[in-house]
Amino acid sequence: MSTIPQIVRSVAEVRSTVGSARAAGATIGLVPTMGALHEGHLSLIRRARAETGFVVVSIFVNPAQFGPYEDLSRYPRPFDDDVRQCRASGVDLVFAPEPGTIYPPGFSSFVTVEGLSDRLEGVFRPGHFRGVATVVLKLFNIVAPDIAYFGQKDAQQSRVIQRMVGDLDLPVTVRVCPTVREPDGLAMSSRNVYLNPDERKRALSLSRSLRAAADAIAAGDRDANSVRQKMRAVLESAPVVVDYAELVDPATFEPITRITGTVLSVVAARVDATRLIDNLPIELPKGFVFSL
Amino acid sequence: MSTIPQIVRSVAEVRSTVGSARAAGATIGLVPTMGALHEGHLSLIRRARAETGFVVVSIFVNPAQFGPYEDLSRYPRPFDDDVRQCRASGVDLVFAPEPGTIYPPGFSSFVTVEGLSDRLEGVFRPGHFRGVATVVLKLFNIVAPDIAYFGQKDAQQSRVIQRMVGDLDLPVTVRVCPTVREPDGLAMSSRNVYLNPDERKRALSLSRSLRAAADAIAAGDRDANSVRQKMRAVLESAPVVVDYAELVDPATFEPITRITGTVLSVVAARVDATRLIDNLPIELPKGFVFSL
Repeated sequence: MSTIPQIVRSVAEVRSTVGSARAAGATIGLVPTMGALHEGHLSLIRRARAETGFVVVSIFVNPAQFGPYEDLSRYPRPFDDDVRQCRASGVDLVFAPEPGTIYPPGFSSFVTVEGLSDRLEGVFRPGHFRGVATVVLKLFNIVAPDIAYFGQKDAQQSRVIQRMVGDLDLPVTVRVCPTVREPDGLAMSSRNVYLNPDERKRALSLSRSLRAAADAIAAGDRDANSVRQKMRAVLESAPVVVDYAELVDPATFEPITRITGTVLSVVAARVDATRLIDNLPIELPKGFVFSL
Repeated sequence: MSTIPQIVRSVAEVRSTVGSARAAGATIGLVPTMGALHEGHLSLIRRARAETGFVVVSIFVNPAQFGPYEDLSRYPRPFDDDVRQCRASGVDLVFAPEPGTIYPPGFSSFVTVEGLSDRLEGVFRPGHFRGVATVVLKLFNIVAPDIAYFGQKDAQQSRVIQRMVGDLDLPVTVRVCPTVREPDGLAMSSRNVYLNPDERKRALSLSRSLRAAADAIAAGDRDANSVRQKMRAVLESAPVVVDYAELVDPATFEPITRITGTVLSVVAARVDATRLIDNLPIELPKGFVFSL
């Protein structure tokens, strides 16, 4: 008896199973994850379920995107629970390879998206986006999805993937889906489980700093430096340790100085040992554009 | 009336034409070239013609694989003659994109094969293999060939491609086909047209140095350093300016010291303004293996 979702460890088996689905006329959706699934991941899976005929979720805690002092070893791996959530969401196949399957001995090919990968997260996590781009390219080559789903929560990652897909002519559509938040505004993250109750409270300052930026812009502030200072004030009063709190161009992630159109407000901060990120696209209120 | 081969400049048109051939049941062969086709390229095309149902030749002088002081601007581009040769060889489609099609403004994604790309050619042509790997990955994504054909003449390039294909799970078979030589031993190269009669004579020293290495090993020499010196003596008496003359491991391109199995003899030298490369795989004579 075959179980749904099918749990597959090998590249060859993914290819043959997905190939059969494709031959039967199904379009293929891929949701790449590191497991520890939460409502954010499930929103991607639901979108994939609605748009494609065969939904693959990959679960792989990718060593190549962790720095030497990061949380690779303690990253949560509730595999059985992840599979249950995949089953409840109608996932067809879970691809859960061993690290040695993805990075066999002698592995030495990497994709880099220059410029974009060097800013913000790239400053604090050198090599992170190289690891992300490389594993995503491999997953695309293994699964050959028609549509792949990523979260706006990891905005810079999503942009790196979009840039890679465009630059390298990958035949896949990338969908970036909205951030899912807890009722109090905290962005869903697999790392939220690290937070004790006090840290959980202070972690709220990230989404609040983004809200402060949006409020300042809605109130007419067009000086990015001034808006940045308002973000920092919220974060530092929590307190959390700020890695960055910026307004950037949503396409290039370069910092802006004057706000003249849609900007992306981005923040990364450490709540004791837990590093969190969040972001919010902010559009100019209608009418303001012409009053500048 | 449609002409054969079809000459295509856009990615979308390649995809639709190749897609139709695939849908009609044909397997796809790709011969990536920089044009200036010679008998070496034609041997790859014939192999593709024999093994696949639809043969694509790409003609693209790839700026990303040339250094700032190299011969990008004077590289030969006899396009009409290339197309005639493709027609005579039964090529179905020639993909000849403009540089701006392959590298549009803002292009910033690159593939690197670490280690292998840093040795030999990589030392003398920094960034060369990054440019090669990136354009080949793009061509693979655009054409989606079942089999792609490369020449042993560019041994290190072929190895970089094989490594990339394995590491990144690309669904393509790589065929490396034997070097084609002039009757006197000179390896076919698009750059041979640069040589005047005197340089043409001195250029023979490359293949002769490889022959000297094979002769020395056949005669029992197992010391790589001693063999290297014999290669250099041939080259320096031509004279040509030696970039490298090495015995390396055919898989890793790392230099070897004792010859205990198949080695790759590789040479790069400058004949006045023209830089040439050549190589020869050398197997140990049978019986010798056991006498070491």
